Amino acid sequence: MLILSNEDIESVLTLDVAFKALERAYLDQASGRAVNRPRSDLYLPGVHEGCVYAFKSMEGGLVESKIVALRLNSDVIRWENRENRVIKHKVPAAPGKKWVGLIQLFSAETGEPLAIFPDGVVQPIRVAVTSALAAREMARKDASVLAIFGSGWQAGAHVPAFCAVRDIKKVNVYSPTKANREKFAEQMERLEGIPVVPMLSPEAAAKDADILVAATNAITRVISPTWIKPGVHATCVKDSEFDDGTLRRADRIVIHSRNFAPENYIAGCGDQKIFAHDPVDFIRGDKKSTGDSEAAPFWVNSPELKDVIGGRVPGRTSPNEATCFINNIGLGIQFAAVGNAVYLEAKAKGLGKEIPTDWFLESVHP
Amino acid sequence: MLILSNEDIESVLTLDVAFKALERAYLDQASGRAVNRPRSDLYLPGVHEGCVYAFKSMEGGLVESKIVALRLNSDVIRWENRENRVIKHKVPAAPGKKWVGLIQLFSAETGEPLAIFPDGVVQPIRVAVTSALAAREMARKDASVLAIFGSGWQAGAHVPAFCAVRDIKKVNVYSPTKANREKFAEQMERLEGIPVVPMLSPEAAAKDADILVAATNAITRVISPTWIKPGVHATCVKDSEFDDGTLRRADRIVIHSRNFAPENYIAGCGDQKIFAHDPVDFIRGDKKSTGDSEAAPFWVNSPELKDVIGGRVPGRTSPNEATCFINNIGLGIQFAAVGNAVYLEAKAKGLGKEIPTDWFLESVHP
Repeated sequence: MLILSNEDIESVLTLDVAFKALERAYLDQASGRAVNRPRSDLYLPGVHEGCVYAFKSMEGGLVESKIVALRLNSDVIRWENRENRVIKHKVPAAPGKKWVGLIQLFSAETGEPLAIFPDGVVQPIRVAVTSALAAREMARKDASVLAIFGSGWQAGAHVPAFCAVRDIKKVNVYSPTKANREKFAEQMERLEGIPVVPMLSPEAAAKDADILVAATNAITRVISPTWIKPGVHATCVKDSEFDDGTLRRADRIVIHSRNFAPENYIAGCGDQKIFAHDPVDFIRGDKKSTGDSEAAPFWVNSPELKDVIGGRVPGRTSPNEATCFINNIGLGIQFAAVGNAVYLEAKAKGLGKEIPTDWFLESVHP
Repeated sequence: MLILSNEDIESVLTLDVAFKALERAYLDQASGRAVNRPRSDLYLPGVHEGCVYAFKSMEGGLVESKIVALRLNSDVIRWENRENRVIKHKVPAAPGKKWVGLIQLFSAETGEPLAIFPDGVVQPIRVAVTSALAAREMARKDASVLAIFGSGWQAGAHVPAFCAVRDIKKVNVYSPTKANREKFAEQMERLEGIPVVPMLSPEAAAKDADILVAATNAITRVISPTWIKPGVHATCVKDSEFDDGTLRRADRIVIHSRNFAPENYIAGCGDQKIFAHDPVDFIRGDKKSTGDSEAAPFWVNSPELKDVIGGRVPGRTSPNEATCFINNIGLGIQFAAVGNAVYLEAKAKGLGKEIPTDWFLESVHP
């Protein structure tokens, strides 16, 4: 069994590798040759003062690649109120102030575990490339100005991914902290060789943009309804960055998955499934019954990305449409696809550490 | 991070350890200090000729123990028709003709992975001890004759577990193959030091029994309705070993979980959840829509084991009641409880292999 580090992964996971792997995965999903077990979050309140433990997992399988991926996160979470926004903060509580996120790959041919590696490098790339694949199908062909909201690791992955699908000539960046947006602009300008301009307000960033990308850790609205104008394409890393008012102005909405919210299981709320993105109220005890689950949003029956990639529905039919892609939740097949590509590349290059697979097999019937 | 083998586990996992850990877990569950993410099965048909790949997983967390367990099985499955019964066969397809079932433990305090080990030794013990805990609350105090159906690893774990909760004086065993039931009887007689009698028919085995235990790999009925007589207690390792006719004769039914069937995700059936124990028909394409999911059984709102262990409902109120415990599906907290006990015992004894935890941590934000 192969153990890879984030450094190993970084050395093989190019944008090109990720685009090829993900496009293929959505084609497989469109043709019924892929399957997801949707994301679930299991919460243990009461272990930490002021924080909550959360175990997140999802799975995906690809028939052609004969691969199944399990992706898990073992997190200590704090929700913080900051500048009128609620921010979800993952506390690096593991030894050495580290986080725990793992991708595990299994062979669907033999069942054996093939590899285990951290998810930190894969995570933003699979999100950004998924949104960029949607933009490839949905943004105007002549889109040239990109507005990006956020200056963190998600935003950092989105700029190159979007530059790979459209001939972007200028990037506007807005992030509430001046130093952050300026540093981000510098970095991206160096990386892409095009002007990347830090903007004083979100409105200014959005003003002349053809593509709007929200890539923040805010769990409240980022994209204003008035920005959804003819010809624009907007996207997000979580649906709360849009809101219904914003989305209702779009002529066309495509979503990542109809599983609109994670399935939450919370100690103290019974063994009931609660659908919500951030079940803070349940954990604090303000809400108890599953009747309080988030209602399915109005856009839940919109076409999924697989339908657009697979050609069942169009991404855009005229230059004047306003389109939105809601990258609303992750899917296991993203980790199966990108994880398998990483595994094969790493294997070919002799990267990582091998430990005996036999440690993880058994001759006792399970 | 600790890696244990089935041999390591066998050397520390006594019945006593399992009883204590599981009783505590059900008490925690009763008081809202435990949580489960129910079992899901992800199927990839089309990888093997005549077989189906299945990735099964479940999770459980315990607040007091600050532990979360993930249990997964990466299986190649064949459903076989044998003697008018459908048998689920797990093909040992991994190198060395082995199976893949793993328990992974995580600290809810730091998030870090603590241990990973095979599930083969834990699996039958947690099933048997759970059923024995139910029998402790539900069988007549003076129950002395145990009838066991099946002669495999599940049955082998049930005999000692039931002998630990009742003063069993005789065991009747029935299994369709003569050689199997005779060998099993010999083994159990040696182990328990009481008469264990191989019977020529299931009816003969059931005749004078106070406790009936179905522990087979049949997915069709094992316990006949006529065997459910006043004073008897019956139990199973899957609900199909009973059937509705049998269960309707019981005065009192207790179940393991209201999650009556695994949530199945099957490539080719869309990303829809299908509730069924063995979704053979879906996989063969005879059924397609989730409207064909198994309907919730009539007993789905029966009290759960946690309610009985926690004292909310009685297990038996008179010597003449006929009681049934349906060990209908596994729960993640079983693996959290027994897994954590195994981990702590093994750690104290210096068993297993240590590999650097740091390999599974990351300084890149996940």
